[in-house]
Amino acid sequence: MPQLPRKPPQPSHLAYVPFVSVHNMMKLVHHIGIEQFMVELAGYLEADFKRWESFDKTPRLAAHSPHGVIELMPTSDAALYGFKYVNGHPVNMKKGLQTVTAFGLLADVDSGYPVLLSEMTILTALRTAATSAMVARLLAPKGARTMALIGNGAQSEFQALAMKAICGVTHLRLFDIDPAATEKCMRNLRGLKVDVEACSSPEEAIEGAQIITTCTADKQYATILSDNMVGAGVHINAIGGDCPGKTELQRAILKRADVFVEYTPQTRIEGEIQQMPADFPVTEIWQVLTGAAPGRRTARQITLFDGVGFAIEDFSALRYLRDLLAGTDFYQPLDMIADPYDPRDLFGMVARAVRA
Amino acid sequence: MPQLPRKPPQPSHLAYVPFVSVHNMMKLVHHIGIEQFMVELAGYLEADFKRWESFDKTPRLAAHSPHGVIELMPTSDAALYGFKYVNGHPVNMKKGLQTVTAFGLLADVDSGYPVLLSEMTILTALRTAATSAMVARLLAPKGARTMALIGNGAQSEFQALAMKAICGVTHLRLFDIDPAATEKCMRNLRGLKVDVEACSSPEEAIEGAQIITTCTADKQYATILSDNMVGAGVHINAIGGDCPGKTELQRAILKRADVFVEYTPQTRIEGEIQQMPADFPVTEIWQVLTGAAPGRRTARQITLFDGVGFAIEDFSALRYLRDLLAGTDFYQPLDMIADPYDPRDLFGMVARAVRA
Repeated sequence: MPQLPRKPPQPSHLAYVPFVSVHNMMKLVHHIGIEQFMVELAGYLEADFKRWESFDKTPRLAAHSPHGVIELMPTSDAALYGFKYVNGHPVNMKKGLQTVTAFGLLADVDSGYPVLLSEMTILTALRTAATSAMVARLLAPKGARTMALIGNGAQSEFQALAMKAICGVTHLRLFDIDPAATEKCMRNLRGLKVDVEACSSPEEAIEGAQIITTCTADKQYATILSDNMVGAGVHINAIGGDCPGKTELQRAILKRADVFVEYTPQTRIEGEIQQMPADFPVTEIWQVLTGAAPGRRTARQITLFDGVGFAIEDFSALRYLRDLLAGTDFYQPLDMIADPYDPRDLFGMVARAVRA
Repeated sequence: MPQLPRKPPQPSHLAYVPFVSVHNMMKLVHHIGIEQFMVELAGYLEADFKRWESFDKTPRLAAHSPHGVIELMPTSDAALYGFKYVNGHPVNMKKGLQTVTAFGLLADVDSGYPVLLSEMTILTALRTAATSAMVARLLAPKGARTMALIGNGAQSEFQALAMKAICGVTHLRLFDIDPAATEKCMRNLRGLKVDVEACSSPEEAIEGAQIITTCTADKQYATILSDNMVGAGVHINAIGGDCPGKTELQRAILKRADVFVEYTPQTRIEGEIQQMPADFPVTEIWQVLTGAAPGRRTARQITLFDGVGFAIEDFSALRYLRDLLAGTDFYQPLDMIADPYDPRDLFGMVARAVRA
């Protein structure tokens, strides 16, 4: 048995897990700059998607209830294990609560010890937008500068800025069934060096847009885009259809488009393609990134990213966050791991705590 | 839309999740008293096992690696969702680290918002022992006062005190292949009003014992108890065989015993019965508690609890902890949930944070 100190005055550094609170996450995002944050995060996402085969993948583990869903999304490579806790409760908004809240954890595979705990409500918004933009950079028509943004809720500004920073989008055309949401989005984007126009219908919003982003929140089979609205050559970034029973696009659009997904088994259950037969052809994004499959082939082709969010994106985001934190103080140490000086003496640690 | 305050000075109470650190858990255990804690916890366990059908159950989600396993163990009833993160890395001990570390979360099913985050390394040790004792109270022969405790590692003292407090065990006979572990266990149990004897072999340890607890840690097919060692009428509390490839009992013992488990699908993979055919008959503990199946029927019967640990036990422990915390200060509020005053304005919350 190795020689162990008899009575360390404090738990070792292993007893403490760095924790990034909501407050620290906001400070960190501002420290880096939100656009720079998403650009750098897209780099981590791309690197991880390119080594897709090196990850353990499993569809998320979902607990459904009458008002929503709570999910655990784990994944791991040979060195790190990550998971995210995330809920989806559309009814929350009426109660003044977030529809989606999340936190996540990164752990060392060799020891099983957690190495980072973080809020992920904000981080998920950032990684969702960075993923959309990373994909649009691959698939959108060349020189795309105008994006329709249908659904102006919590995700909309993040999508706008990621598309600006990563794809060079300069014009945004907004629509939401609730004009107050559009006003909020306009207000938030003011001064951020992007032209923004409020539109009074989805049809108006998509006029002249090479990229169409749909990110509405209602949990239902909705038709945000109908087939006759979608012309040739556009890239559709459909991220609102992200759970069973929730879609945004008319079925006929899917038939005309080439559909790209993150992880097929999960998207068939949760994405727009839940409307299609189980053998409906799709291409996974990592295949395009590695050159194993083509992305956009022609100027008239409709490309469609059926984004539902996948565990590897959270992993990339946590990995980026961990690297960002090094040498900063945007975290607090959390006394989360019992660390007796003799690992077989957990009881003794507890017993001595009383006497101390 | 409900009227919302324009600029609350602080995030609402929903933004904060009560967090029980290792330090606070130790303080709390001492405040209640460790034996009283396990007695009360056994009450919560029994109540939850009795309403077994009301839980969503799923085998744990395990990520295996060369050195160990990281698991997520979720479960939920109609009101609360709980999960535990737990690792199992037998090699950790050689590095001076815990073999098992854990933390857990309780959330509100209706909103998906977390309501409690807690260390669970200590809490798991307590709930494992309380579960063993709750089961032994059902199955051990009447008047059992002597227990053999084979394996004197991190779980051993918790087992000893739970069996004392819940089942009335007064005599303990210890054995471990490492005499230092036995010495540590003896030392920790000194003054706790239980007779403890160190034994030099498993055979010696089980002499006169009505309850035999095996809780060794090596990950392998081991034979801690062989068939000829086990006489009629004992209750075996086998909790060390708790993952694929790890067992403690000779197969022949299982054939002579009536085997009781927590959740059959999980135990067939992880427990002692992984040595047996898939149709080997077992009884689930909740069936005994509700009267749906008999427990001990005769004085000569060998009863065997093939305990592997199940998510509902963690749920019960977190539920007990939440109730214990009410009105105390054994926790700290953790700023883990982004809570913008308008739930659709996550971006605005982040943007305003920079200006503030």
